[in-house]
Amino acid sequence: MRNKFKVLVVTGVPGVGKTTLLQHLSKMAEEKGMRVLTVNFGDFMVENAIKEGIVKSRDELRKLPLRKQLELQALAAAKIVERAEESLQEGGILVVDTHALVKTPAGYWPGLPEHVLRRLKPDAIVVVEAEPELVVERQVRDKGRQRGDIGGVEGVRRMMELARATAMASAVWYASTVAVVYNREGEPWAAAAEILKIAESI
Amino acid sequence: MRNKFKVLVVTGVPGVGKTTLLQHLSKMAEEKGMRVLTVNFGDFMVENAIKEGIVKSRDELRKLPLRKQLELQALAAAKIVERAEESLQEGGILVVDTHALVKTPAGYWPGLPEHVLRRLKPDAIVVVEAEPELVVERQVRDKGRQRGDIGGVEGVRRMMELARATAMASAVWYASTVAVVYNREGEPWAAAAEILKIAESI
Amino acid sequence: MRNKFKVLVVTGVPGVGKTTLLQHLSKMAEEKGMRVLTVNFGDFMVENAIKEGIVKSRDELRKLPLRKQLELQALAAAKIVERAEESLQEGGILVVDTHALVKTPAGYWPGLPEHVLRRLKPDAIVVVEAEPELVVERQVRDKGRQRGDIGGVEGVRRMMELARATAMASAVWYASTVAVVYNREGEPWAAAAEILKIAESI
Repeated sequence: MRNKFKVLVVTGVPGVGKTTLLQHLSKMAEEKGMRVLTVNFGDFMVENAIKEGIVKSRDELRKLPLRKQLELQALAAAKIVERAEESLQEGGILVVDTHALVKTPAGYWPGLPEHVLRRLKPDAIVVVEAEPELVVERQVRDKGRQRGDIGGVEGVRRMMELARATAMASAVWYASTVAVVYNREGEPWAAAAEILKIAESI
Repeated sequence: MRNKFKVLVVTGVPGVGKTTLLQHLSKMAEEKGMRVLTVNFGDFMVENAIKEGIVKSRDELRKLPLRKQLELQALAAAKIVERAEESLQEGGILVVDTHALVKTPAGYWPGLPEHVLRRLKPDAIVVVEAEPELVVERQVRDKGRQRGDIGGVEGVRRMMELARATAMASAVWYASTVAVVYNREGEPWAAAAEILKIAESI
Repeated sequence: MRNKFKVLVVTGVPGVGKTTLLQHLSKMAEEKGMRVLTVNFGDFMVENAIKEGIVKSRDELRKLPLRKQLELQALAAAKIVERAEESLQEGGILVVDTHALVKTPAGYWPGLPEHVLRRLKPDAIVVVEAEPELVVERQVRDKGRQRGDIGGVEGVRRMMELARATAMASAVWYASTVAVVYNREGEPWAAAAEILKIAESI
């Protein structure tokens, strides 16, 4: 029912500060002598899709019909577990950077549907949250990437609520815990420490 | 993992204006030359129950023990897919008119539990919403049908929230999207157009 | 898809008054000549863990790594169904006293994950709620047991909301209903009567 290594899925709406937080997490885990493999779900999807000649870029991937994206999602999950089985043969922690909820032209798409959960078997689903005002600000600041409009402060707040409920729905499958971790401005290390503590209690 | 045809499950609390919206949807799809089969889940349940001599009317169905209703729910889902396989052999869109949440004397009942999802395999679950005030008004106006009391404006608001979370829980099974479509008074065609666009992106 | 006996899972955050309510329920069912078996999920987990020599007390159980607790959770579910199959050979009602959501150091843990649902196959999941102010008060009053801090009135309110959504997610598996039952101060018998009525409509 579980993988040999511990599996932490770290989710959060765009702009919540997940990338910086996960860099701190990696460094802190290393300092403690813990084996950690961090993978980005979206990157894996893009890499595989490019390797298979299906798309040339991340933006192109998003424009594929949903059924095609679904296949790539399944492939990515399988590849992530394969890599973890290689890297973490003697145990350790697999950290998967992804979303509980993805906004698509066809509506909200669960980032952790059954066919992904069946492969990842998460011990814990971490939901990173931050002040909605801050999330919107970060989305504007972050010009290097197209994040799309998610409806201002109120839109962000509603999406975070729905993401939390969706994380709980995903958690029912493999009895994962759902940990809501608050990412305070300027203190990503505090949130990272909190996530490490979760990993230790599994 | 998917049916040959696209499957759109359209849900909404009673009074949200789903019936009119779906009539517009059918007409618009036809004009675009799209093959669409629209079925009402509740009608299928009633028809099958009458055919099998189990009940004589919709009201009688509602008074059956839940375990009996459950069997009829499973039967209806199977029959819907059968009909769609006949009508949409060369592809097209199956639109299933149903609820994410049904109020029963034993509490809220999921309209899309596992055994229904396993058969329908929805690509998208559309959650039609409208102003709670308007929903209550429509419930009063609509005298031809017994809808039961769902607790005034506040009751409708809470039920819509719970229906949304339940739709997300159902979506986790087959990686369906959940699209919240707002049905503005007097503009059912706008909501219908939005749903057609969703169908196109699948 | 269902057990021979009816299965009612009664959930509620600590302090909601579940224990007293269930005592009333047992007494009322007896008076009506209904066969009812009430079991406490947590007690079953502790008993089994002690019998197997894994822990000596409930508090020790809570300190076990989550993966170990998971095994004990599965064992408890299996043992509960075994006992019910013995006691309720001619039908009746199994009442399981548990939580939809459990607070652990690794986050919220679903009390009704797939591997528990697969065994219990609940007909109905009852979510007992009460005024958040009252819940906090009861938690303070109740000194015989360590309930942990759940964040004051606002924390209780948020946990109740999340518990409701989680109950709906669990309900999708076996098409269980989710009944929200309000436990008014001083009227546990009214809530118990409401639950009995639910059992009768299954």
